[in-house]
Amino acid sequence: MRIDIITVVPDILKSPFEASILKRAIEKELVEIHLHNLRDYTTDNYKQIDDYQFGGGAGMVMMVEPIDKCISDLKSQRKYDEVIYMTPDGETLDQKIANQISLQKNIIILCGHYKGVDQRVRDHFITREISIGDFVLSGGELGAAVLCDAIIRLIPGVLGNETSALTDSFQDNLLAPPIYTRPAEYKGWKVPEILTSGNFPKIEEWRENEAYKRTQEKRPDLLKD
Amino acid sequence: MRIDIITVVPDILKSPFEASILKRAIEKELVEIHLHNLRDYTTDNYKQIDDYQFGGGAGMVMMVEPIDKCISDLKSQRKYDEVIYMTPDGETLDQKIANQISLQKNIIILCGHYKGVDQRVRDHFITREISIGDFVLSGGELGAAVLCDAIIRLIPGVLGNETSALTDSFQDNLLAPPIYTRPAEYKGWKVPEILTSGNFPKIEEWRENEAYKRTQEKRPDLLKD
Repeated sequence: MRIDIITVVPDILKSPFEASILKRAIEKELVEIHLHNLRDYTTDNYKQIDDYQFGGGAGMVMMVEPIDKCISDLKSQRKYDEVIYMTPDGETLDQKIANQISLQKNIIILCGHYKGVDQRVRDHFITREISIGDFVLSGGELGAAVLCDAIIRLIPGVLGNETSALTDSFQDNLLAPPIYTRPAEYKGWKVPEILTSGNFPKIEEWRENEAYKRTQEKRPDLLKD
Repeated sequence: MRIDIITVVPDILKSPFEASILKRAIEKELVEIHLHNLRDYTTDNYKQIDDYQFGGGAGMVMMVEPIDKCISDLKSQRKYDEVIYMTPDGETLDQKIANQISLQKNIIILCGHYKGVDQRVRDHFITREISIGDFVLSGGELGAAVLCDAIIRLIPGVLGNETSALTDSFQDNLLAPPIYTRPAEYKGWKVPEILTSGNFPKIEEWRENEAYKRTQEKRPDLLKD
């Protein structure tokens, strides 16, 4: 998979791809990440990428032209499955969308910054708008990092143990059950006896019950789907 | 505001705080971010922070003791309003929660990694569990960065123009209206005439209508609250 990320602050996106699972996925060549600084696609001496809003109001707006140039340049080199714009008013990212996008080959992710992009970018270049949640961030960069993390860890071979991702929360519409590790007792707090019993069918049953109970208590909405 | 972040991969969290708005907020001393490497709170030579799950299963679990040591150490130095654990089964972050947390003074954010933390950590040390959405990430680090961004930008003085955050999506349960900037025409695509009319009361009316229309079309659920 190849992911091209267009941003005005590529610096924000450095460290998330230089550590842990994402780093290893890149090293194993299971994914390629290319950061594009929007300022490299400006034509004026000031490298201007934003301007005031038409109609007045606080906050700068990202201009059409540099974005057009960058996306067109990328599209002239290869076919893209999707040109995604990270924006709080996009469709809300969930595991289903992450699963879906993880199957694609080439995608572009455009990060909004400041007040967002000129609406004409959204009308003419964007194929999918994604939000990571109902809150506002300084820019789309962290949203892009989150989206990349969510999809890259689903690419076969990225996680050491393939079964690990499948037992995560949401893959079966259930939250994960409680988990415990050594020591069996810490400051008088014990792990549930069943988990140290060695009776694996019973343990599985306990986990399923706990997952169901936790989901019903915390997120009954997930059970309705 | 002071934010202490506990993590096993502090490297992931470097660049988000070294650029753009978060960097400036730290420089202006409006917020202090302290990253704590959980391995510094281990007592054995291997600096072990995780171990296998009781009862079997894929994925490692973060142990109680180093987390206890780190949190207790921080709590011995100052009072914390909240000890937050980033986890996909926590309450889902939204703008209301971000507004709320942005008013606090000292918070600890614990990032889960691998399969998550031993349940006893959640039972005995955590006061609030937050998820950034219904998807699974490699760890809580990006979630913590997202939470920090969402709350820090709300601290008075962080955004250049104080009115800017208030006209963002979600602050009034409405998505933001479309925005445009120069040029007024690009490749034949024009900005709506009203925005270049100079008639500001009409522009405000248009924006309200558009915000309402967009919300009804994309996120009718927001209008129900």
